[in-house]
Amino acid sequence: MTDTDYMKLALDLADKGAGLANPNPLVGAVIVKQGRIIGRGWHQAYGQPHAERNALADCLENPKGADLYVTLEPCCHYGKTPPCTEAIINAGISRVIIGSSDPNPLVAGKGKEILENHGISVTQGVLKQECDALNQIFFHYIQTGTPYVIMKYAMTMDGKIAAYTGKSQWISGAPARQHVQETRRRLMGIMTGVGTIITDNPRLTCRIEGARSPVRIICDTHLNTPLSSYVVQTAKTYPTILATCCKDENKQSAFLNAGCQILITPVKDGHVDLKDLMLKLGKQGIDSILLEGGAALNWSALNSGIVKKVQTYLAPKLLGGAGAKSPVGGIGAKDPDHGFFLSLPAITVIGTDLLLESEVYPCLQES
Amino acid sequence: MTDTDYMKLALDLADKGAGLANPNPLVGAVIVKQGRIIGRGWHQAYGQPHAERNALADCLENPKGADLYVTLEPCCHYGKTPPCTEAIINAGISRVIIGSSDPNPLVAGKGKEILENHGISVTQGVLKQECDALNQIFFHYIQTGTPYVIMKYAMTMDGKIAAYTGKSQWISGAPARQHVQETRRRLMGIMTGVGTIITDNPRLTCRIEGARSPVRIICDTHLNTPLSSYVVQTAKTYPTILATCCKDENKQSAFLNAGCQILITPVKDGHVDLKDLMLKLGKQGIDSILLEGGAALNWSALNSGIVKKVQTYLAPKLLGGAGAKSPVGGIGAKDPDHGFFLSLPAITVIGTDLLLESEVYPCLQES
Repeated sequence: MTDTDYMKLALDLADKGAGLANPNPLVGAVIVKQGRIIGRGWHQAYGQPHAERNALADCLENPKGADLYVTLEPCCHYGKTPPCTEAIINAGISRVIIGSSDPNPLVAGKGKEILENHGISVTQGVLKQECDALNQIFFHYIQTGTPYVIMKYAMTMDGKIAAYTGKSQWISGAPARQHVQETRRRLMGIMTGVGTIITDNPRLTCRIEGARSPVRIICDTHLNTPLSSYVVQTAKTYPTILATCCKDENKQSAFLNAGCQILITPVKDGHVDLKDLMLKLGKQGIDSILLEGGAALNWSALNSGIVKKVQTYLAPKLLGGAGAKSPVGGIGAKDPDHGFFLSLPAITVIGTDLLLESEVYPCLQES
Repeated sequence: MTDTDYMKLALDLADKGAGLANPNPLVGAVIVKQGRIIGRGWHQAYGQPHAERNALADCLENPKGADLYVTLEPCCHYGKTPPCTEAIINAGISRVIIGSSDPNPLVAGKGKEILENHGISVTQGVLKQECDALNQIFFHYIQTGTPYVIMKYAMTMDGKIAAYTGKSQWISGAPARQHVQETRRRLMGIMTGVGTIITDNPRLTCRIEGARSPVRIICDTHLNTPLSSYVVQTAKTYPTILATCCKDENKQSAFLNAGCQILITPVKDGHVDLKDLMLKLGKQGIDSILLEGGAALNWSALNSGIVKKVQTYLAPKLLGGAGAKSPVGGIGAKDPDHGFFLSLPAITVIGTDLLLESEVYPCLQES
């Protein structure tokens, strides 16, 4: 097996922490001695030991003189746990193979340096692209302090998210809907607008057995969310945040009693200030949000610059309807040169649907 | 080289007739003797000799005892030209390798039978799928007598064919727009509605140098096309058909004088009867139409069942705009289970855009 093969294994291990390690990175580690894998580990959950320590603890024999493959440069500072570089040195590892560098430019390379100063040979950048991709959320969060926001919608081949009657069940097929549950499992937050709560009364939970559900965030400028809605009624079980501009304490208290958290933001264009909201959510440790909004909220989110990725579930059907809604509403860009530009999408076939995933390029809009 | 390799060559030759052979099929032929290609041919233009005869005429040496590869079963009847089976037999070909069978079930297999009765060995179905795909238009036309209609539109990742201002230049990039010109070159007709003529005053010609332009068909229920429009002004150069329900001879005469043809259809739901129109266009020998309509005409066309294929040029950008148009309008289907279902699209990356091509499944709608 080559360095690449072992790193692939480490990547698979890292992914097991998805939805549990946040807002920490996903990290996997494999320890190899004389061609035999003697230990495996990953960062299993926030606050728990790092991948390297778990891999060392997993060793069936003495790791002295072994190689350690790790998807992210080992930490060299005292955080919730002591530095991993220390554990690696103490274990007598002779070579360390790293995928991603530390995303913090002030720290990047330091872990490597410390290891090398102790006579350990270090190889960097093995499967770097794949390792970086796995921690897209963490890299964004650690550098900006705000959540990585993925805007998700399901639309038909003629751009409709619902029929003209408003019926949207179902645009996409069961496998695509199951895939959304998987994304809910991986992300820490899920956000929608009060309009969607009133119209659809959704649960916004993760229906995968045993998985934790994301924190629910409702953008509700005037606190119009019905107290009888599913999200409010279950707020003591599933964390629920109402983001609002409404300072009316009487109105607030009913939601607080129901177990909701209330986050006040300034008013921006008559609505919740989404940029401010992201800073506040980031401070609470929310590193990622799946935006499952309606057309109006999607436009506000794009316009405020918080959306980093777009997931389009494209269903091969045509609904028609001049009055049927499309995924992004609001005022809109004035011409095709003033919209939001996306990267060429990565395409995945899911059942009978396509999933198109694009990064949002930094905004080129004038207005 | 194998049978498949030679058939691939024949397919490439066949494609050279695109846009010129219609409404005849695209057919290519290669003659091989002792491992050497001694003749190549294709059906170059309607009314001219068939591929087999062109390949025989192209032979640099006596084809006696040679193998003939042909993408479509040789004809065995007297049409505009004598049967190809006759020419093959007379030339002393010893083996014939066929791609597609004759699409006419009454004739399919007859060509093969005649050849075999003359002691020629026949192999059928080599690259059948590819050969069939090349003549999708011909197979449809010969079986129904109506044109194969491809509905084409360019939309953004949020389903917009224009900004809220109506500006649509340009949704897709230059390579995608060039690709549309290529489709215009291959198809015999191009169709749009009077609304598009009034709003955009398009040329609807093929801008590829040396290529013939498709026949322009304008759906214009009340004959409201401006006499000053580009299509009317150039009708003597580029054939232009006005499909209308308007029987006012005074109104008609101005268009006739300008060189337009007028086709009267019954009224269907207040508009041109598209099914009737397709029968009339089919009788004129138009085997294929590129529908570049607006949202309303696209809905009517889908609803009337004339659309066989959908070409979606998908631009990775988001325009937003609750008032921006999406590709299919009209009343629309009442819920996602009552739309028009498409096959999983074939995906081609063209420049920075995606081209998604789907077949339209037979209509499942109630209303």
